[in-house]
Amino acid sequence: MPELRHDPIQKRWVIIATERARRPSDFPPEPASPGGAGFCPFCEGNEDKTPPEIFAVRNSGGQADGPGWLIRVVSNKFPALRIEGDLDRAGVGMFDKMNGVGAHEVVIETPCHDQNLAGLPDAHVGQLIDVYRQRLNDLKRDPRFRYILIFKNYGVTAGASLAHPHTQLIATPVTPKTVAQELDAAREHYVQRERCLFCDVIRQETQSQDRIVYDDGQYVALAPFASRFPFEVFLAPRQHAHDFGDLSEGDGQGFARALREVLRRLKVTLNDPPYNFVLHTAPNTSTAPRRPGYWTTLPYDFHWHLEVIPRLTRVAGFEWGTGFYINPTPPEDAARFLREAVTG
Amino acid sequence: MPELRHDPIQKRWVIIATERARRPSDFPPEPASPGGAGFCPFCEGNEDKTPPEIFAVRNSGGQADGPGWLIRVVSNKFPALRIEGDLDRAGVGMFDKMNGVGAHEVVIETPCHDQNLAGLPDAHVGQLIDVYRQRLNDLKRDPRFRYILIFKNYGVTAGASLAHPHTQLIATPVTPKTVAQELDAAREHYVQRERCLFCDVIRQETQSQDRIVYDDGQYVALAPFASRFPFEVFLAPRQHAHDFGDLSEGDGQGFARALREVLRRLKVTLNDPPYNFVLHTAPNTSTAPRRPGYWTTLPYDFHWHLEVIPRLTRVAGFEWGTGFYINPTPPEDAARFLREAVTG
Repeated sequence: MPELRHDPIQKRWVIIATERARRPSDFPPEPASPGGAGFCPFCEGNEDKTPPEIFAVRNSGGQADGPGWLIRVVSNKFPALRIEGDLDRAGVGMFDKMNGVGAHEVVIETPCHDQNLAGLPDAHVGQLIDVYRQRLNDLKRDPRFRYILIFKNYGVTAGASLAHPHTQLIATPVTPKTVAQELDAAREHYVQRERCLFCDVIRQETQSQDRIVYDDGQYVALAPFASRFPFEVFLAPRQHAHDFGDLSEGDGQGFARALREVLRRLKVTLNDPPYNFVLHTAPNTSTAPRRPGYWTTLPYDFHWHLEVIPRLTRVAGFEWGTGFYINPTPPEDAARFLREAVTG
Repeated sequence: MPELRHDPIQKRWVIIATERARRPSDFPPEPASPGGAGFCPFCEGNEDKTPPEIFAVRNSGGQADGPGWLIRVVSNKFPALRIEGDLDRAGVGMFDKMNGVGAHEVVIETPCHDQNLAGLPDAHVGQLIDVYRQRLNDLKRDPRFRYILIFKNYGVTAGASLAHPHTQLIATPVTPKTVAQELDAAREHYVQRERCLFCDVIRQETQSQDRIVYDDGQYVALAPFASRFPFEVFLAPRQHAHDFGDLSEGDGQGFARALREVLRRLKVTLNDPPYNFVLHTAPNTSTAPRRPGYWTTLPYDFHWHLEVIPRLTRVAGFEWGTGFYINPTPPEDAARFLREAVTG
């Protein structure tokens, strides 16, 4: 069973793998491209090489764990957290730990190995967004899970270990530090002003236009004023919404269009860069008691959004040691390049 | 002039380069080894290819900016922050910014291009530690600087752009977020218990022995209970000390021995891995007024330490999006491998 451990100095939880632990000789030099050249367990026809499917979109029928799917969700074969068991919170002297209970799923975005998310049809991306929403809401029913993360690693530099297009979901029994900080900031802003922090940012950015990447009235993509990374993009609904799980079908289609447009602009502008994206949404309070450590999610405490981070620069000692970033591309420049990109 | 910008959502300062800003075509695929093969501006004899020296150790004499040095400190030719000018704090609507005022220095650790820190004699590393201390204390005299970071990037994966052994110093007009969080945690611990948080951790780890890497009575190196990365090492004086700038000569020699021993153990165990190290010490309050945003440094508010992070795994979307880390090597295993390493 993996362990969750708490650092009293940085006040952060860490997942420590205890099974299949990696020894010094298990850290080989980095491969140039995602592994598995030749055989791919995510390709259509290889369904028996993954754990059984949890969910699938099969527009033209077909049996579970057989071919005929458009999108397929399976458990991660090498999960960071285990679905079975209790948290068993315990102290270790002055430290804290609990069992590494959680869920780790893989959303296989398409049966086609060589496709990529930016190139899929809008309707297909729309169905993918709906799969994200459904898995999020399903995992929220488990009272052990306080947060469900949806994220994507594209390209080796961004941490992808398989080239076949896929997204990951991890459900964790704690609210991750970065999300907790955003929740705190949004709460503080709301308490002082009775306005949503994110709505205020979107409103100001829309007025100035300097950092707007894309705006279709329903969704806004922008280069954040204090971007940590070159060509970082923040994508959010213009209309206030705290929980991605509440997304309606029409809003999902709109989000799919906006996401695909942002990814295509990054691809054209930066020559198909490696990237990560992460969805930040309200934590799971559907089943949790309201007590310290749980964030309540009054509707104005959060505003869901997606952060896209192209991996163009190396993160070095300065950033690790300080949480302070040096960004060599002003977000105004990044937004202009992305705004003017020709994707069609 | 670079700009410091504040993110109201993550509450973090970011340095935005405005001169020599990088455009999309300025992000080439990554080089396999640090650049500058052939010519090296840090080598002895090429002193005129760096900015003028700020400080140097010249045991056998020799003129400034000429050969004959053992350790040499110069301004970074491409500084992240500029030494001239005022902060000019300003609001931009709901955002905050200030001029990118600061210092960015390079400590060239040895005249020999192919040497590395782990292989230098103890006495040489002792002099290097003393150079760190002197530069730290000198930069503290500038009231614009609230924090001085000392860090090292070793190897391309760790962000080194030149292979010649060097360390960097960056003086910033704000206390970086990670350090501020450690200061807050240490302050809170002290207020509740009237004991130093770091001393408590060191005491507990010394009792359990499970995660001790090295312990010579004066300095202790350990694999943190909630290590974010495989083979991460925390190195600190056993005796409470909040400010690295107060280091005595004898303590500096002891620290040099301990640091070199840790680096040698990492080198032997992990086949000369890329790594970053970062020194965390008390912020600069020598000239600053006591008001919000400045941390006071009562002696028990902090305990200086060095964090060494071997760069063995890729940081992916999960980590960026959450501040939550998955560490595939339990720190107990890492400590055992490093403890048992034979360094000759």
